[in-house]
Amino acid sequence: MWKTHITRVEPNRLTVRGRVLDEMIGEVSFGQMVYVVLMGKLPDEKVGRMIEAMLVASIDHGVTPPSTHAARQVAACRAQLTASLSAGLLAIGTVHGGAIEECMILLGHGAMERGQSGKSPQEIAQTIAARAKETGRRLPGFGHRIHTDDPRTKRLLSMAHELDLAGEHVAIAEALVDSLAKVTGKPLPLNVDGCLAAILSDVGVPPELGNAFFIIGRVPGLIAHIAEEQANERAMRTVNPDEAEYEP
Amino acid sequence: MWKTHITRVEPNRLTVRGRVLDEMIGEVSFGQMVYVVLMGKLPDEKVGRMIEAMLVASIDHGVTPPSTHAARQVAACRAQLTASLSAGLLAIGTVHGGAIEECMILLGHGAMERGQSGKSPQEIAQTIAARAKETGRRLPGFGHRIHTDDPRTKRLLSMAHELDLAGEHVAIAEALVDSLAKVTGKPLPLNVDGCLAAILSDVGVPPELGNAFFIIGRVPGLIAHIAEEQANERAMRTVNPDEAEYEP
Amino acid sequence: MWKTHITRVEPNRLTVRGRVLDEMIGEVSFGQMVYVVLMGKLPDEKVGRMIEAMLVASIDHGVTPPSTHAARQVAACRAQLTASLSAGLLAIGTVHGGAIEECMILLGHGAMERGQSGKSPQEIAQTIAARAKETGRRLPGFGHRIHTDDPRTKRLLSMAHELDLAGEHVAIAEALVDSLAKVTGKPLPLNVDGCLAAILSDVGVPPELGNAFFIIGRVPGLIAHIAEEQANERAMRTVNPDEAEYEP
Amino acid sequence: MWKTHITRVEPNRLTVRGRVLDEMIGEVSFGQMVYVVLMGKLPDEKVGRMIEAMLVASIDHGVTPPSTHAARQVAACRAQLTASLSAGLLAIGTVHGGAIEECMILLGHGAMERGQSGKSPQEIAQTIAARAKETGRRLPGFGHRIHTDDPRTKRLLSMAHELDLAGEHVAIAEALVDSLAKVTGKPLPLNVDGCLAAILSDVGVPPELGNAFFIIGRVPGLIAHIAEEQANERAMRTVNPDEAEYEP
Repeated sequence: MWKTHITRVEPNRLTVRGRVLDEMIGEVSFGQMVYVVLMGKLPDEKVGRMIEAMLVASIDHGVTPPSTHAARQVAACRAQLTASLSAGLLAIGTVHGGAIEECMILLGHGAMERGQSGKSPQEIAQTIAARAKETGRRLPGFGHRIHTDDPRTKRLLSMAHELDLAGEHVAIAEALVDSLAKVTGKPLPLNVDGCLAAILSDVGVPPELGNAFFIIGRVPGLIAHIAEEQANERAMRTVNPDEAEYEP
Repeated sequence: MWKTHITRVEPNRLTVRGRVLDEMIGEVSFGQMVYVVLMGKLPDEKVGRMIEAMLVASIDHGVTPPSTHAARQVAACRAQLTASLSAGLLAIGTVHGGAIEECMILLGHGAMERGQSGKSPQEIAQTIAARAKETGRRLPGFGHRIHTDDPRTKRLLSMAHELDLAGEHVAIAEALVDSLAKVTGKPLPLNVDGCLAAILSDVGVPPELGNAFFIIGRVPGLIAHIAEEQANERAMRTVNPDEAEYEP
Repeated sequence: MWKTHITRVEPNRLTVRGRVLDEMIGEVSFGQMVYVVLMGKLPDEKVGRMIEAMLVASIDHGVTPPSTHAARQVAACRAQLTASLSAGLLAIGTVHGGAIEECMILLGHGAMERGQSGKSPQEIAQTIAARAKETGRRLPGFGHRIHTDDPRTKRLLSMAHELDLAGEHVAIAEALVDSLAKVTGKPLPLNVDGCLAAILSDVGVPPELGNAFFIIGRVPGLIAHIAEEQANERAMRTVNPDEAEYEP
Repeated sequence: MWKTHITRVEPNRLTVRGRVLDEMIGEVSFGQMVYVVLMGKLPDEKVGRMIEAMLVASIDHGVTPPSTHAARQVAACRAQLTASLSAGLLAIGTVHGGAIEECMILLGHGAMERGQSGKSPQEIAQTIAARAKETGRRLPGFGHRIHTDDPRTKRLLSMAHELDLAGEHVAIAEALVDSLAKVTGKPLPLNVDGCLAAILSDVGVPPELGNAFFIIGRVPGLIAHIAEEQANERAMRTVNPDEAEYEP
């Protein structure tokens, strides 16, 4: 026998992480429920709202991400829905989407150093930025191919502050934007990966679960592209995202 | 050039289905957002709550579903997260999870017949049940391996009525439970697939998108199992769901 | 207990389809071995050579197929090898690669009709071509986007004749080329899918296993593209097959 | 424009790695062709025979590997062929199948050290075994859950010697068996992964392509299990490999 701590299945009774499932239906938000199933406990409503906001922010980024491209290319071959979806998801890993986990580790180290040294977030950020410059390493969670001031990041950070959920990981991330600008001489904005990393860390999610939240939020977007591809485009076509035109 | 109607990507501006993404963050629930990206328009708050409830209801069913089993078996080989997740999702198709789409088609035919004939849901259900008996065909969305009275179904249906979202598809599905009991002589409860089918139809979702809602709701559960497998179990073990024991 | 008829595993002894595996190593070709594991019996050497030839013919078709495109797009995200490979394989199904199975069914019906009616392959082909014209249905296995006279088909068919393996499925396929040209007024050559379909049918493979041979032959090509992508191209790039240039 | 060096596609002409494809059909074995597409050059016939032998040896290992288990579990849900196949392949990575690459790196280091120091394979093996003991590290490619004297290894090694293809990687691998036995006091046989690693290294394959040969050889076995599952077993069943019984 081996143990599972997620869901007890009995006839006419389902218990998820110690709570009766049907009593949560309609009472907790999907954001809270995601936290319940992954973290093992019910978060308060504010954390639930914050997670909903992060899932909403992750929903889609048009045809530019390689995951969307791969999903549409398989959908063009009229595969079963989950086959196209899987092709998209398989593109998400260390490079695409993976910055969340790495940035959480980075911010976690910063927070630990802060706890030990009593330094301010600004001082911690200074050290990290200086070290990055020295080693020539690009920090995960900063900079974006398209956005210089990602509207999702701005909105999520202001929510985190309003809801009083922004803790030291957010503080270090925000300080890093200033430090990186000073050290590198060019603006390196916090991207949405880095933003999720900071907020997820502040609501208690460990780094290895960070990507999960992005993935959960992105699945509906991938499915929308798969459905659109199958409905509107010719079977077996070559999908070229550079030739896509948005039409409302 | 080809057209996409989902998301416009411009520097520092994302527009999903015609609405500015960052203005929706924190304002619309994830349930509403899923509807936006898949259906192309913002549903009212009640529909959003109903969809959240259906996503919450779909979150997990322990180690019993073959998708969870496949995902854990690949996770036991320490594959990347999305590889284990894909193995699980690939199990979801015509047989596992597919009853939603088929049941939506069934209820849709019933509703169309009702519109044309002016018959009551009970009369429509009678005809469907009689036909099923004749042909020996098992109706999609009815009956469950484990539950005789699925607690998720009960809760979702009562919510649909409370929110005044239950329309004729729910009416036909509920009438079918009675008709099937009479015709077959044994209770064939509406299962959670059938329940999602009826409610999704009543909020305007077409059959080919039905499974998507179940998949979106189940992804977090699959990820929870993958994380648990990697954290607690020996690499390369054979996963046997019959030997699993729930421990809170 | 449930039964498997493929491989018996005992300490220091492996028996595949009733034959000791290590006694086959070095004695049977991979083509023969593929037949053994899928069909349950050892084919003679000629069939083995024919299957090797079909696997060799299937090895790669550059960056034009959607499967290769999808595999490279996921490889660009530096996924694990089998994740990129899976993204490619998932594109292969009813539309891409699926013509083999459908063409086998078509030729099988023709052969059956021939057995019952005593008609010649030419007469059978005439009927099929006429019916196709009437219904406007495109016959699976005929016509190609790029090749008007596929060099693989020509070589495989001549081998099938030389090895005396060409039977009535090949005869009907060859007759169909003539009949289709007459009926449609334009040349519709037998493509490599149709060619595999005809020869596989003549060596006793059932339609539902037809695609398997194409897949087995194509896997090394997909892996070559994945390796090339990871070795030569920038992470996260958009793969555009139309911009690829062959360089020896 | 970007470059590909694998296949040139022109109307009625396919050139793989600089050679006309149809001229290779029927002339080169599939083993040679796999080498051509992955390594970029035609190997001599002996190398081709050796690769065929390794592919034959990899064909199947019953229902015991987690990849086969995952593939069958998805096949039980009646997914498309490539979906079940992908679920199986996704299990193959660093842990399952990955020993080939790691063992190639280990043997490569040994060979390099040998070249620099002029030591004998026995002396190199001695050092590696002693270091492994010290660090408590299990060497990749040695030991097996089921076989103490893997019949595939024995046959493949004797072929490598007969064909005069066994070079210093095989020599070091063979010496390691003795050294490990002496150092650990218990027999740690070369398993089939280690055997493929040694021989592939000796025929010039780099470590990062090592797993590819195992994967190419195993695909037909996975497909055989998928076909058997769909033909013989009930949809949605739980696949338990411990309850499988071999029947010829």
